[in-house]
Amino acid sequence: MTEFAAYQSEIYLQGLSGVVPPFTTDPAGLAASARELLGPGPYWYVAGAAGSGATDRANRAAFDDWRIVPRMLTDATTRHLGVTVLGTEMPAPVLLAPIGVQSILHPDGELATARAAAELGVPFVLSTAASHTIEEVAEAAGDGARWFQLYWPDDPDVCVSLLSRARAAGYGVLVVTLDAWTLAWRPHDLDRAYLPFLRGVGTAIPFSDPAFRAGLDRAPEDDLPVAISRWVRLFTGTDRSWDRLDFLREHWDGPIVLKGIQHVDDARKAVDAGVSGIVVSNHGGRQVDGAVASLDVLPDIADAVGDHVEVLFDSGVRTGADVVKALALGAKAVLIGRPFAYGLAHDGQVGVRHVLRGLLADFDLTLGLSGHRSPAELSRDALRRAGAGGSGAW
Amino acid sequence: MTEFAAYQSEIYLQGLSGVVPPFTTDPAGLAASARELLGPGPYWYVAGAAGSGATDRANRAAFDDWRIVPRMLTDATTRHLGVTVLGTEMPAPVLLAPIGVQSILHPDGELATARAAAELGVPFVLSTAASHTIEEVAEAAGDGARWFQLYWPDDPDVCVSLLSRARAAGYGVLVVTLDAWTLAWRPHDLDRAYLPFLRGVGTAIPFSDPAFRAGLDRAPEDDLPVAISRWVRLFTGTDRSWDRLDFLREHWDGPIVLKGIQHVDDARKAVDAGVSGIVVSNHGGRQVDGAVASLDVLPDIADAVGDHVEVLFDSGVRTGADVVKALALGAKAVLIGRPFAYGLAHDGQVGVRHVLRGLLADFDLTLGLSGHRSPAELSRDALRRAGAGGSGAW
Amino acid sequence: MTEFAAYQSEIYLQGLSGVVPPFTTDPAGLAASARELLGPGPYWYVAGAAGSGATDRANRAAFDDWRIVPRMLTDATTRHLGVTVLGTEMPAPVLLAPIGVQSILHPDGELATARAAAELGVPFVLSTAASHTIEEVAEAAGDGARWFQLYWPDDPDVCVSLLSRARAAGYGVLVVTLDAWTLAWRPHDLDRAYLPFLRGVGTAIPFSDPAFRAGLDRAPEDDLPVAISRWVRLFTGTDRSWDRLDFLREHWDGPIVLKGIQHVDDARKAVDAGVSGIVVSNHGGRQVDGAVASLDVLPDIADAVGDHVEVLFDSGVRTGADVVKALALGAKAVLIGRPFAYGLAHDGQVGVRHVLRGLLADFDLTLGLSGHRSPAELSRDALRRAGAGGSGAW
Amino acid sequence: MTEFAAYQSEIYLQGLSGVVPPFTTDPAGLAASARELLGPGPYWYVAGAAGSGATDRANRAAFDDWRIVPRMLTDATTRHLGVTVLGTEMPAPVLLAPIGVQSILHPDGELATARAAAELGVPFVLSTAASHTIEEVAEAAGDGARWFQLYWPDDPDVCVSLLSRARAAGYGVLVVTLDAWTLAWRPHDLDRAYLPFLRGVGTAIPFSDPAFRAGLDRAPEDDLPVAISRWVRLFTGTDRSWDRLDFLREHWDGPIVLKGIQHVDDARKAVDAGVSGIVVSNHGGRQVDGAVASLDVLPDIADAVGDHVEVLFDSGVRTGADVVKALALGAKAVLIGRPFAYGLAHDGQVGVRHVLRGLLADFDLTLGLSGHRSPAELSRDALRRAGAGGSGAW
Repeated sequence: MTEFAAYQSEIYLQGLSGVVPPFTTDPAGLAASARELLGPGPYWYVAGAAGSGATDRANRAAFDDWRIVPRMLTDATTRHLGVTVLGTEMPAPVLLAPIGVQSILHPDGELATARAAAELGVPFVLSTAASHTIEEVAEAAGDGARWFQLYWPDDPDVCVSLLSRARAAGYGVLVVTLDAWTLAWRPHDLDRAYLPFLRGVGTAIPFSDPAFRAGLDRAPEDDLPVAISRWVRLFTGTDRSWDRLDFLREHWDGPIVLKGIQHVDDARKAVDAGVSGIVVSNHGGRQVDGAVASLDVLPDIADAVGDHVEVLFDSGVRTGADVVKALALGAKAVLIGRPFAYGLAHDGQVGVRHVLRGLLADFDLTLGLSGHRSPAELSRDALRRAGAGGSGAW
Repeated sequence: MTEFAAYQSEIYLQGLSGVVPPFTTDPAGLAASARELLGPGPYWYVAGAAGSGATDRANRAAFDDWRIVPRMLTDATTRHLGVTVLGTEMPAPVLLAPIGVQSILHPDGELATARAAAELGVPFVLSTAASHTIEEVAEAAGDGARWFQLYWPDDPDVCVSLLSRARAAGYGVLVVTLDAWTLAWRPHDLDRAYLPFLRGVGTAIPFSDPAFRAGLDRAPEDDLPVAISRWVRLFTGTDRSWDRLDFLREHWDGPIVLKGIQHVDDARKAVDAGVSGIVVSNHGGRQVDGAVASLDVLPDIADAVGDHVEVLFDSGVRTGADVVKALALGAKAVLIGRPFAYGLAHDGQVGVRHVLRGLLADFDLTLGLSGHRSPAELSRDALRRAGAGGSGAW
Repeated sequence: MTEFAAYQSEIYLQGLSGVVPPFTTDPAGLAASARELLGPGPYWYVAGAAGSGATDRANRAAFDDWRIVPRMLTDATTRHLGVTVLGTEMPAPVLLAPIGVQSILHPDGELATARAAAELGVPFVLSTAASHTIEEVAEAAGDGARWFQLYWPDDPDVCVSLLSRARAAGYGVLVVTLDAWTLAWRPHDLDRAYLPFLRGVGTAIPFSDPAFRAGLDRAPEDDLPVAISRWVRLFTGTDRSWDRLDFLREHWDGPIVLKGIQHVDDARKAVDAGVSGIVVSNHGGRQVDGAVASLDVLPDIADAVGDHVEVLFDSGVRTGADVVKALALGAKAVLIGRPFAYGLAHDGQVGVRHVLRGLLADFDLTLGLSGHRSPAELSRDALRRAGAGGSGAW
Repeated sequence: MTEFAAYQSEIYLQGLSGVVPPFTTDPAGLAASARELLGPGPYWYVAGAAGSGATDRANRAAFDDWRIVPRMLTDATTRHLGVTVLGTEMPAPVLLAPIGVQSILHPDGELATARAAAELGVPFVLSTAASHTIEEVAEAAGDGARWFQLYWPDDPDVCVSLLSRARAAGYGVLVVTLDAWTLAWRPHDLDRAYLPFLRGVGTAIPFSDPAFRAGLDRAPEDDLPVAISRWVRLFTGTDRSWDRLDFLREHWDGPIVLKGIQHVDDARKAVDAGVSGIVVSNHGGRQVDGAVASLDVLPDIADAVGDHVEVLFDSGVRTGADVVKALALGAKAVLIGRPFAYGLAHDGQVGVRHVLRGLLADFDLTLGLSGHRSPAELSRDALRRAGAGGSGAW
């Protein structure tokens, strides 16, 4: 019995006393269950996607295009799931993706998430658009591993200030999101004119920032509209270029990861730019409607960069099998997003923990039952294309 | 913030005062919303397709077969969407397709559409089967760019008269529809025996035409059945041949565009015939049931004609991503149809404007977020085939 | 205006007086509409398929795999749809397939079908399992073209008697069904234990046959169970072999068509056996569950036999586009089944006529609008495979 | 009329007295029908799958990727369906798969199943996790052929004891399940915390075993929790390796079959290990979510092992057509699972018998109507890939 699979036993054993899990263990059922709990604004802010939702659907369908080929009698009783990515040890190749404004899901927001992650040793990535400050979340996380996600503000002083705060608060890796420099056309939110930031939700980090406040005549708490307006101007609408990455490297002495890579040439540019990692991601289908499924480009990108940078993956991961597939196609670890957000919505820290334990148990069991003892054993040989033709490789 | 994306901000900001958009911003939701407003006759006249609807579904599915591959850090903050097609400048590569009998959707019909288009600077194409005359619509459009669509009447005098009226009223380009010389089998309309023309709706242009009236013993207003009968005889049932295009060139001194091209050989014939443009289109799936998806033939046709004619595209465009894909596959601009018609049904000029602004914002944001600054930067490299195999090009 | 397309105008014009078609003109809507009229036994006997229904679904999906590529400006105003198949002139390349026990759908059964077919000049194929005798149906058909379908009885005398009766009653072509020598596993009928024949429905032809009656001690009307038992023994459960076709050729001096061919080698054997035609068919998905779609094998079979036999097609034809596709892929004519049966269920002769006129109008308009003036102009060039890859032929 | 197809006639004839089948004959309808009878715990324990259910869906979809090409006039009137597999004669190439805890479906559990199997001569495979002992089930089976499935206990004495009991009780073949050495993540059961074993259901075989009892201080009936705990420890959580198969060969003098093979290399290892057969299976989608469809790997595996071992198949078989396809792709016989379990749920022995007779009739009719007289005549030539491209082999 591994540490992760233990959650399965725990559930079954509790059943003997008539206790069932706090909410569903079915990754496909989490959204439906969260939808019943949340108002349409918050629910769709998380569940919704850009435009017609085509990218979101493509992300999921892409996993179905690959199939695991289980191997037998490999003595997979004992498994070691831990990996180290950019100096961060993690008990399994899974991180919590940076999701903003988590307080719309639960009053404890990122604090609950950080605590649940720390309980399990799973690293989380704090979003620039969090509902709590860098420091508050660090305190909640305690010894838990944490990375910091940057929406790159259009003011060098604010940027430097955020980076130094994150570093000081123990965030070990900087994740720079490239694919969301302006918000996409999101009908679910537009139809409800629902954008939490405009009401001052998800602004804790800049509003608490000395450099940001220095640019205001009055403190945000005294003139919210002006602070929001400045925040929106700084954080959205401005794309960057490759040569400006130097600035970040100058002000961040740890590993830098670029999030949102979807083209092999951009992956190669990332290598040339000297960053330490990339996240192959389409922002969970929330930015470019009609974009390529993230998993569909992962193999080519992983081939292209080889060992020159660490390749992480997100967009569409829901199940243990998804994790196995992404790793087999070249990812060192994956980020999960909506599933833990739905857990948060259900019951704060307890809810996040339930979802995480379920996903890790599912991954552990799927890895083992497919005949592998560690993530390192996974390669493209573990998979086959779906359909009667299969891979043709045999 | 570009001019188009501004609509996104406007909606979110209005949300602070509790104001939400007049109706959905979701292109996939427009039809359902319009269906609630309209009677089944008008609704299905617009939404319905030929036969079993197979072509209509194929049109939509074809967009899903191609996927945008977003590029990062391209400095796409500032974008220029404008293009000039056949001498017509337009703020974005989008025109309003010629839809007839718009008064079944809203009493203002084409006048409302023309006004909304003019507000935004978007060109519209007036249908021969409009509910208002060439001159009335021109007046409503004011300085707005306008093209004239011809259902080629089987009477040279009437044809010449229509062309000269359109030219006099400032319509800059002639769009000759080739694929609707007779009406297809449309079960939705047949089941209701709903054909507006037979009740004198959508006959404003011929009924106001001196040459047409000259062929009648009594004016249409005095003997509607006879006028309708003559109108039906002149405008339907008669196919033409390539050598008869000379007649149009003789009587129209501006650019001529052939609408309904779906085969590379016909595209080549169009080049040989000396026209200025083609619209790759299957009439939105309303004519040949079981026909090839318009997008599926676009790349080959664009390759075949090169720069010899302007290639426009319609049939199935609903979202900003669709526009990006059609341009990347070779179109210079696209025509949208049903979406603006649904907008018209919702609220006349205001409704058309809402739909147009939404589509342009979506296109602008999708273009920018995929790393492009102008339509000219789009090429097939911006796309990848859907599925695990992808393009194979990398 | 062609003779067939005239039905479209007729419907629209009747709409001016508030008259709509007797029932839907939508081929996809016919089944749903018939289901409301009929009891579950008769409805599912017609609509149901073998086993899980996989073949039935495959038949329909196969049509979607091919797409018509319409051609423009081909001067298709005037069209000639008539063809001559095995000496039978028909106004369009469409016949009515042999469907048994039509009296479960309407009391007039095959008489109504024969009358409707005769009205329009469309040939019909009388099933051995009809509810009326060979002679009664011939009388109802009058001058209308008729073929006779044989379920090959396991008694030479009865077989010869049926053939001579059919010949005497003016049936011009013999259609020998090969794929239904025993009834398949049909859950819809089994769940209701519904088999009309066991109640003496659909036995008119053998029960009226002198040779069949000669094998009974008492006339069927005096001892129904024994007659039914003999009928079942003679007509089901016994497969034949190729060398036994000689017997039929000996006793039928007209053209012989083999129905149920699905493999190129069987098509070649049919040529070698000297028959005049084949029907590429899987019995509308009613016999072998999981069988190949009939349309999927048509092109190879048509190529294999060339001009050596006439190639007919059935299984899944519902729309005018379907007819166009089957002809383009090599069929000389198609047989339609369930659609006319649903028409019969709606209103006897009038219902069959409505369905037929609709299908012929749809075919005529689809043919013309795709740029063709006659069935002979259709070839594989008129089609393209569905999907972004298309045919690759351009 | 063959022995199997007779069930069809029996049903139709009973219809004359108003009698219909005890429950549906539609394989696709069995699950829905069982769901109405059973509580959600038992129903989902059987119907549910691992994780998101992707493997279960893939299993079914894989059958649709292959299509039977029926042949005509092959004189298939008389058919012989019997095969001999590893010394076991069976009337058709079908066995009942090992399903555990059948008493959750019906009080008679495996006894009913064994009786129904014996009635028809169909071999069954008894699960280690049965609700009745090896000996009780053997007695119920009487002369009926039986195989024994082993969940390999982590105690050599218990293992040897089980094997010798099975041998003594007339189980002819040992089926070693490789793919379920630990239980997968199964949301349906987890959500209800439903695991029958923890309540002592499905433990009859170990609890009655002398070697197992010898390891307990008190008999299971006196201390259920401790017995269950030992049972869980012995039977789950421990994977084996190829070199440990020697142990089984040493203690089982009959044929050994490895169940759960999904990779050609594992199939080759099975040959090298000297076993007599393999079951290509993914445990009906119940173990590795996202795994390859069992049918998708069957052809390559059958090619790889040739005649060196007997190739059996399970996972997804529901219809007669499925059996035909699996045999044509290389299986010597198939195991069916859920369908007979649903039959058991409906009416014990009578229900299993109804399902089995239906499946065998369906298989018999499908085999015959596709032109074959015996399983041995089936080869890949009997099939064609689905879709317009087909196999390309003609």
